Amino acid sequence: MFSLSKRAKLLPVSPIRRLAPLATAAARAGKTVYYLNIGQPDIETFPAFMRGAAKVPKIVAYSPSQGISEARLAWSNYYKRHNINFTPQQITVTTGASEALSFAMLSLCDPGDEILIPEPFYAIYKSYATINDAVVKPITTYAEEGFHIPSKEAIESQITPRTKAMLICNPSNPTGTVYTLEEMKWFRDVAVKHGLFLIADEVYREFVYDGREYFSLFHLDGIEECAIMVDSISKRFSACGARIGCVASYNPDIIDVFTKYGQARLSPPAMSEYGLVEVLNDPQTDVELDNMVARFKARRDVLYEGLKDIPGVLCHKPRGAFYVVAKLPVESSEDFCSWILSDFDLDGQTVMMAPAADFYATSGLGKDEVRIAYVLNRDDLKKSLQVLKAALEAYPGTKVQTAVKSEAS
Amino acid sequence: MFSLSKRAKLLPVSPIRRLAPLATAAARAGKTVYYLNIGQPDIETFPAFMRGAAKVPKIVAYSPSQGISEARLAWSNYYKRHNINFTPQQITVTTGASEALSFAMLSLCDPGDEILIPEPFYAIYKSYATINDAVVKPITTYAEEGFHIPSKEAIESQITPRTKAMLICNPSNPTGTVYTLEEMKWFRDVAVKHGLFLIADEVYREFVYDGREYFSLFHLDGIEECAIMVDSISKRFSACGARIGCVASYNPDIIDVFTKYGQARLSPPAMSEYGLVEVLNDPQTDVELDNMVARFKARRDVLYEGLKDIPGVLCHKPRGAFYVVAKLPVESSEDFCSWILSDFDLDGQTVMMAPAADFYATSGLGKDEVRIAYVLNRDDLKKSLQVLKAALEAYPGTKVQTAVKSEAS
Repeated sequence: MFSLSKRAKLLPVSPIRRLAPLATAAARAGKTVYYLNIGQPDIETFPAFMRGAAKVPKIVAYSPSQGISEARLAWSNYYKRHNINFTPQQITVTTGASEALSFAMLSLCDPGDEILIPEPFYAIYKSYATINDAVVKPITTYAEEGFHIPSKEAIESQITPRTKAMLICNPSNPTGTVYTLEEMKWFRDVAVKHGLFLIADEVYREFVYDGREYFSLFHLDGIEECAIMVDSISKRFSACGARIGCVASYNPDIIDVFTKYGQARLSPPAMSEYGLVEVLNDPQTDVELDNMVARFKARRDVLYEGLKDIPGVLCHKPRGAFYVVAKLPVESSEDFCSWILSDFDLDGQTVMMAPAADFYATSGLGKDEVRIAYVLNRDDLKKSLQVLKAALEAYPGTKVQTAVKSEAS
Repeated sequence: MFSLSKRAKLLPVSPIRRLAPLATAAARAGKTVYYLNIGQPDIETFPAFMRGAAKVPKIVAYSPSQGISEARLAWSNYYKRHNINFTPQQITVTTGASEALSFAMLSLCDPGDEILIPEPFYAIYKSYATINDAVVKPITTYAEEGFHIPSKEAIESQITPRTKAMLICNPSNPTGTVYTLEEMKWFRDVAVKHGLFLIADEVYREFVYDGREYFSLFHLDGIEECAIMVDSISKRFSACGARIGCVASYNPDIIDVFTKYGQARLSPPAMSEYGLVEVLNDPQTDVELDNMVARFKARRDVLYEGLKDIPGVLCHKPRGAFYVVAKLPVESSEDFCSWILSDFDLDGQTVMMAPAADFYATSGLGKDEVRIAYVLNRDDLKKSLQVLKAALEAYPGTKVQTAVKSEAS
């Protein structure tokens, strides 16, 4: 009687939100909690977005299912500035990258189909696969190698007759890795050779540091049939709550299916569409974005230098996005992340981090790792690092260090 | 190579939007097109919603996945005014009723599971079933009977071992039917007896005319385990583009699953949540809503009286929502709806209506029916009726009338 669906039961509880009750309890007990667990920047939403949102018509009506034409054109012009050539007709405006990802998976995967994803990966990919009865097959990458793809063969070896697609996040949440041109070509070549779709989540496109060159999947030749862009303004304009993004492709069959999914849910949120138009078109936006990325680069430096100084912590230098996956000298980072919230404070301060095991599909991997989002100002990051260092000194489960050393990718 | 998913291929093109190119062409050719095809009211969004949306914090951040606490509380208080007792914790704020419906279907149906829906039904139900690999089984209702449920047995006879849930829309889109207490009890009793979930789409709750009493599913006893509420502010505050609604249940297992789905898509659109809070809490809202419903009642009267006067048109008197399904004296309403846009005008005016076959799961039904949304002012409705009457006189496919008569439910 009244039995829920299998996928409903299988759907994981968000790892990032699982520790939330402990953080709430710590805050209630008067502790200062530094939230390094979630990719929510502390930066004001770009004013052009707010101005645009206020311009929504007095009848807040359904927009066309693919988005208002001004929004599709604004995306198209934005992409041109990044040397990516989408016509407005190839772009469907979505309710954030979440919906873009949902449209992509629904369009490609039947129940039981497999999707290859480099691990560790954004945990929500697993949720969307579960919702679609699809199976995540990991391409394992390692902290010691800066979470780069080991080889083209490492990708191909995971392909089975059920493999339908690959999904890459570049720059990567959770690792901060920026794929090289060689790696991007591996993905492309494998996709084309094996007839696999290739979904690129590029919401952190502008968050690239140290003068590294960024290669969008859509900078490559030969991807016309297989490639799908998943995008969002959440991070680049600090508008996470706006829930506005897009999904795009050069493949007309895919575009048609996105249109049908768009029609099923009627339209994206209208106010956010008007905000999107204004912020994408405003000439001031690129300047503000450069400034914001420079701030995140400075934060990255503080965090990386600080982590290197903590005995037993292994951490590659993240080159993009605003996350790092760090190995801690503990057995279970989940236990440690709970303990630091519940049983520890340094002068009334503690930190919330995301245990990394949930970012892996392979059972057992990532158990001693955490994802840290450097979404706070440098002073708070420095304090967070002091808390983490003191906590690892105090934690009963911290391993005695022998010869672990930090490593820069 | 590069083959899309089966469900992507099966997903229907939105019937309401299929005629759009013809309407666009008619408008380009200088005709005035009266849009009676879609439930987009011509009424300004309630000002309280706009005021609230402007109060979103300067960092438009992810809200909690279940919605900001103020929004859940505002929904809870709203429901209390309608004698429905949801605690804020039983309510998940969603991106419109579309997402609420999606959460419900995902939570209940595994691939191949069946869901019973009275037909004609809101066409998008079929899209969501397809997305979830679920199967719609219709409970057929008839224009001649005011689209009421024929009997409890008519519901039960459609149950198979794969039946998982029932879905009712009350007041109904597309028929305007308001279910009686007896009908509501039939649904409840069948659900409880057979262990079926019962989803109630009540987005038109306030749109009830002629002093009829409205019975929410949640006014009944015994539905604690099985019942799911799907709701939205789109219609009642004329905020279709805001994409904000909720899904709610008394069943803690269902609430837990909704939370997990909510986490997967992170959060509802934040500005719309703030708008929701203000418009649900504003004491002026109920007054404005009463005035709006009175306007729709007057429109209903104009439309119904006008349709009765057109020879060969059969139309029951809709008691709620703002739609009617009318039988026309033609073989194919789809052909007629295309023809009236492409090949007909009365003094430069034409109308767009939705062919009703797409609102049926049973092949062959509804072919001579249209859904008309009375979302225009009375003058425009009167002009639309003149156009329709003249078109049926001019249409080569109009059947010669014998003894068909209009009927009031």
